Amino acid sequence: MKTQIKIAVIGLGYVGLPIAIEFSKHFMVTGFDVNINRIKSLKKYKDDNNEVKINKKILKNNLLNFTYNKNDLLDCNVYIVCVPTPVSKSNKPDLSNIKAACKLISKFIKSNDLIIFESTVYPTTTEGVCLKLLEKGSKIKCITNRYLKKGFYLGYSPERINPGDLKHNLSNTTKLVSSNSSEGLNKIYSLYKKIIKADVIKVNSIQICESAKIIENVQRDVNIALMNEFSKIFRKMNLNINDIIEYASTKWNFIKFYPGLVGGHCIGVDPYYLSHIAKKNKIDPKLIISGRKINDKMYMQVIKRVSNICSNQKINLTKSNVLIMGFAFKENCSDIRNTQVIKIFDYYKKYSKKVEIYDPLIQITKEIKNRINIVKKPKLKHYNIVLVLVPHKKILSLSSKYINKITKSKNIIFDLKNAFKRNYFSL
Amino acid sequence: MKTQIKIAVIGLGYVGLPIAIEFSKHFMVTGFDVNINRIKSLKKYKDDNNEVKINKKILKNNLLNFTYNKNDLLDCNVYIVCVPTPVSKSNKPDLSNIKAACKLISKFIKSNDLIIFESTVYPTTTEGVCLKLLEKGSKIKCITNRYLKKGFYLGYSPERINPGDLKHNLSNTTKLVSSNSSEGLNKIYSLYKKIIKADVIKVNSIQICESAKIIENVQRDVNIALMNEFSKIFRKMNLNINDIIEYASTKWNFIKFYPGLVGGHCIGVDPYYLSHIAKKNKIDPKLIISGRKINDKMYMQVIKRVSNICSNQKINLTKSNVLIMGFAFKENCSDIRNTQVIKIFDYYKKYSKKVEIYDPLIQITKEIKNRINIVKKPKLKHYNIVLVLVPHKKILSLSSKYINKITKSKNIIFDLKNAFKRNYFSL
Repeated sequence: MKTQIKIAVIGLGYVGLPIAIEFSKHFMVTGFDVNINRIKSLKKYKDDNNEVKINKKILKNNLLNFTYNKNDLLDCNVYIVCVPTPVSKSNKPDLSNIKAACKLISKFIKSNDLIIFESTVYPTTTEGVCLKLLEKGSKIKCITNRYLKKGFYLGYSPERINPGDLKHNLSNTTKLVSSNSSEGLNKIYSLYKKIIKADVIKVNSIQICESAKIIENVQRDVNIALMNEFSKIFRKMNLNINDIIEYASTKWNFIKFYPGLVGGHCIGVDPYYLSHIAKKNKIDPKLIISGRKINDKMYMQVIKRVSNICSNQKINLTKSNVLIMGFAFKENCSDIRNTQVIKIFDYYKKYSKKVEIYDPLIQITKEIKNRINIVKKPKLKHYNIVLVLVPHKKILSLSSKYINKITKSKNIIFDLKNAFKRNYFSL
Repeated sequence: MKTQIKIAVIGLGYVGLPIAIEFSKHFMVTGFDVNINRIKSLKKYKDDNNEVKINKKILKNNLLNFTYNKNDLLDCNVYIVCVPTPVSKSNKPDLSNIKAACKLISKFIKSNDLIIFESTVYPTTTEGVCLKLLEKGSKIKCITNRYLKKGFYLGYSPERINPGDLKHNLSNTTKLVSSNSSEGLNKIYSLYKKIIKADVIKVNSIQICESAKIIENVQRDVNIALMNEFSKIFRKMNLNINDIIEYASTKWNFIKFYPGLVGGHCIGVDPYYLSHIAKKNKIDPKLIISGRKINDKMYMQVIKRVSNICSNQKINLTKSNVLIMGFAFKENCSDIRNTQVIKIFDYYKKYSKKVEIYDPLIQITKEIKNRINIVKKPKLKHYNIVLVLVPHKKILSLSSKYINKITKSKNIIFDLKNAFKRNYFSL
């Protein structure tokens, strides 16, 4: 007799929600989140992140149930943990969410259940931290070999969700799955095979799988940092980094990265995770840390560049109205976690006449309103300085005519990513 | 009346020789090199670098003349400088070759001549160093605008030769051309259009063009350094970096680089050039330097890893015969400039019973023989330790049977780049 699969997805953010929805096409799914507002929105078929469309039928047919009630996890036999893994203020891994998820699940798991982690972690976390909490809380052992007949199965399958990306999604992106037992590996493989149209690849080491995920993001962080370092050098030499990148890209093996702000919950965070475990192993990851430092201070380079343009153009900052376009951590995405724009906002709040932010994608909550001056629409003939920091498609669709309308006659427009390609100022 | 183009190519190495040959299909070309032995070989239709085939007809028809005689440069009107730009022992740019080339040319140039540099340099070198030497030596001005009627034209077109690469060559690789005058730009464009089947792209700033070239190589250096840093971390955690890279590569935007030794005259050198000009501009290029340091010390990581394997396998180094396979700075290339293998050789020369090098591609000159123990063929049943450091195709074609034949019964085989994929030891 085959047990019916019942899946619990813990954490319904950018990662968990699409997983819950995809699996609900095949299995009963309980989508759990501790954020009550999130659950309330989802129950109204609304993803405030604007990433996923929620089909009403699925909810109505009870194949997918959104809940913040722990007791709803009771009869599940597969648990997929998709909680965020941020860093603390001192940039140390903050595993509190994933630990809380383990403690929660451990109360419910039974023999033969499958526990899968999708959150990005430093290698050894799943087996070294999560497994132990699960065993401790449940008083059940993890099945690590075929001689152990009773216990739960452990799996790790790193999320590869790219917020704002319309081309790559859960289903068409190759998925890695791993386990610390061959039976667990077969189970997790068969499970994801149901929802992934692209390849599902078995990795027979959880640590290798954790590592494969984290180096992706570290590589991206370091490459953007390199472009930021380039932009610093070439700006000092009065050379335009965007032109240099365009021409370098005509070589077959040059990889196009652009300078810019690195925020969010992955690229800017994961290098600290890897550095943490490196240092624990007495390796000083100088290159990774060096990249991180450059990206973390990139907002200062932006401020400095704008100051230079202001003084060249004889625009007095203290008498200027400033408009910042884009507040999310990246283009075409509503996520504002770790956005670097806030650092730039804070500077202009202090040193300009007034600074406002326009971002058509982000949710304007009370918290946001209290923290920043966000406007629903830019004012007319009002701004001396316009900074296009996060060029969402919706921002890019603005004509130069429109931008002329909102600025005062004497103005500067700074286009951080050279997105408009209309001879505005850039890095 | 149109003057007949007569081209002088200064420096006939990996860059200059293919340029001289391609242009000789359309124009009279004088190929000049100060290395008399090089000229002697070329006159016998032999490229000791094994990169280019020299067609006897071209030489016989006097379309291409190889020479070390300065006076043969007398009646040329286009000069293309392809000399190496290495670093000094303290890793500072060594511009002596390019300066010597400028001084040499300056004796011959006339009004309307076109001087082109292909050598990789830090931005500002062509206009800041070369132009000045050319003007000083020739007493002719460089034409920088259309009001100057008399003078020579200056151009920069960075070489993109990739030694050992059968796919990308001079003719099928997009070529950037730049000049400090629009007339110069048109001239250099028309010239290269004759030999480049791929796009020839006009860049209207020599400094932008110099920068576009140098960032390509710096990007490569930093990316390899990152993989080297990863390999250090993961080795300490007992995780195989090659597996991790393979799995990470299943994500659409991961860029496959591998850990390894970085030698040669480009990737390992150019970051010092860019750092030099950055520092002159009071920018501390921390990331670039950090990458360079990692790659420069990577040989130590190799030695350390092999030592650990030796002690695990209970192989006594002082009693071991060591064979190093591959000595060139990279695969499928005979170039040994800045090869990092020599550092590893020196270590085993000191600490093993005997160390030998096998490299079927490099030229065994007297100098080489005096410096390293190079063998034409590995000995049978002789080696306790085999290190495959530069996996030329010729080395990769060796069967495991053959490798078993040359090793003693108790042995270790270390495959730096995991090239054999036969479960030998790797990083």
